[in-house]
Amino acid sequence: MILFGVGGVGRALIRQIVQNRAYHAAEYGLEISILAVCDREGAVVALQGGLDDVTLLDVVEFKARRRRLSDHSQGGPQQDLAAVVDIASRPGTLLVDCTATEETVPVLTQALAQGHRVVLANKKPLTGAQEVYNRLTRAGATGSQPAARSWSASRWEATCGAGLPVMATLNRLQASGDPIERIAGAFSGTLGFVMSGLQAGQPFSAVVREAHRLGYTEPDPRDDLGGVDVARKALILARGLGWQLELADVAVTSLYPAALAELSVAEFLAALPALDDHFAEQVAAAAAQNQVLRYVARVAAGTCQVGPQAVPAASPLGQLSGADNLVEFHTRWYQPTPLVIQGRGAGADATAAGVLSDIVELAFYR
Amino acid sequence: MILFGVGGVGRALIRQIVQNRAYHAAEYGLEISILAVCDREGAVVALQGGLDDVTLLDVVEFKARRRRLSDHSQGGPQQDLAAVVDIASRPGTLLVDCTATEETVPVLTQALAQGHRVVLANKKPLTGAQEVYNRLTRAGATGSQPAARSWSASRWEATCGAGLPVMATLNRLQASGDPIERIAGAFSGTLGFVMSGLQAGQPFSAVVREAHRLGYTEPDPRDDLGGVDVARKALILARGLGWQLELADVAVTSLYPAALAELSVAEFLAALPALDDHFAEQVAAAAAQNQVLRYVARVAAGTCQVGPQAVPAASPLGQLSGADNLVEFHTRWYQPTPLVIQGRGAGADATAAGVLSDIVELAFYR
Repeated sequence: MILFGVGGVGRALIRQIVQNRAYHAAEYGLEISILAVCDREGAVVALQGGLDDVTLLDVVEFKARRRRLSDHSQGGPQQDLAAVVDIASRPGTLLVDCTATEETVPVLTQALAQGHRVVLANKKPLTGAQEVYNRLTRAGATGSQPAARSWSASRWEATCGAGLPVMATLNRLQASGDPIERIAGAFSGTLGFVMSGLQAGQPFSAVVREAHRLGYTEPDPRDDLGGVDVARKALILARGLGWQLELADVAVTSLYPAALAELSVAEFLAALPALDDHFAEQVAAAAAQNQVLRYVARVAAGTCQVGPQAVPAASPLGQLSGADNLVEFHTRWYQPTPLVIQGRGAGADATAAGVLSDIVELAFYR
Repeated sequence: MILFGVGGVGRALIRQIVQNRAYHAAEYGLEISILAVCDREGAVVALQGGLDDVTLLDVVEFKARRRRLSDHSQGGPQQDLAAVVDIASRPGTLLVDCTATEETVPVLTQALAQGHRVVLANKKPLTGAQEVYNRLTRAGATGSQPAARSWSASRWEATCGAGLPVMATLNRLQASGDPIERIAGAFSGTLGFVMSGLQAGQPFSAVVREAHRLGYTEPDPRDDLGGVDVARKALILARGLGWQLELADVAVTSLYPAALAELSVAEFLAALPALDDHFAEQVAAAAAQNQVLRYVARVAAGTCQVGPQAVPAASPLGQLSGADNLVEFHTRWYQPTPLVIQGRGAGADATAAGVLSDIVELAFYR
């Protein structure tokens, strides 16, 4: 495999691959050879065979200290992903995208067209143009046969709920022909924390400030509160259902008004108390109907909505508390109660584990 | 494929395959051809190609009226499964076991040894001798390589939680090398109903009688209350973890004392009130510690326990109510809160859907 991206997820993936070498060999007859590791600051490429584990763990250490990968490489700087693939790949090489940029799209689509395979932890390539999504997810046709829905040359489990088997479950439901009527999910640990705080009676401003102070939010909390990251996950689920949609088609309700968009982070945090009454009223109105407020991605009837929604307190989403993710699949066979997947939906290790499962699984597909 | 068993699950599977023909062809480039349908009362075998849909739906109707399959077959009675496989199979044919008997073991193991593939909804073959389990689940070696753990020539998702992705999740967790510390699950809708009733303050006798009256239990409710069916699921999970265990190694706590085993069903139902105080005390003792009583399969530290257990009221198992199944996977990356799978865990259609997902998935493995 060739790894793009040596941030938290990429480093965790390298560690997990190295730590599980003996296990994968014994139980799966599988050797996961890393031919190259690269990011926009450089590349480390194996001249022969795969990179050895000492080198790999050295790269992990090096990048953890936020050094430039080109300063590590003994082969000199190599900053063009396509060139790295040309040098390092063999027929059927796996490309693993652990970056967070759409800049990988050209090299990924070209590689798939050349018969390589792809695993994505990166949501961006799958949430751009529909046509790009199709090329990334339906490659791998054998002969005249179209690439099978969801069993193509690519996998992207970690884009939705980290290591949780969300796409795997979607794929199994679709394989059985069970019609999926709607999907509803909580896909942000940060917003889960905020919603649990509101339910416990905390003012909106207090719970957002606490989440910011604890490092649960991005440095600018509006990156979470705006809901765009959740919208990308909703779009990936909707497209997984076969729907043709663009990110602009996802109706996103932000947790803050547009008027606060231009403030500095400090000003934004200072302005939050003006929203407290609004949210307290929403929470009270929901409670009066035995409901609770959750930040929900809803994929139903050809549309995607993302935003705060009142859900029955006794439903799986209503019972969720804290930062765990939760997805409800409402289908013909799973009603009135849905099929539910729940658990940690973020974090470098859980995400890398989702990527590693995809890597092993792809190794056993024809 | 060749189908063994034309009970509720087998009939639902035939219907789902027929209904999804155009969908599977368009989305997966897949034609699921049924070469033979058989049970211990006979067989219907295609002389050429697969059985046509009119014939298949006719078989479904015929068996729904509890007629003998040999009376339907135009080819005359054919009651030997091995002979049917000999006649109908081609290289790499899929055998699907929707029976509830261990009598299929010889034909399944022989077929796997000959390069055929197997999907099981039937728990019995996987809960007999360990050596039989190994042969059924680790076949499919290519060359000198051992068959991969959980990506072999067989699948058995529907043996544990019907269509819920329990084995699929176990397989993904194991593929990533995430150490599974324990699995705890509620795998009986009937016992879930009983436990929810107890929690709501109903006497044990009343809730069991109600479940019996509503047809939620087997005709003899002791078949559910004894816990052996749950024990089989626990054993399949434990063996899925690679543990070497026999069914006799699963510690099963029945919900009724051995003294009631010899009574008639009517006598048993009449004797139940003697147990009411015992369960009311257990429920009260649990509640005093903020816990609730669930009928839990627990797979941990090399052992399997099945029986009533007090679990934290706020845990996923504690929050479960009604007949849905729920499985908690406690692993290195999923703690302190587990990865949870929840939903309908029984019923002919949900079980058949799990089998059909396995069939489609196997078609895309090399």
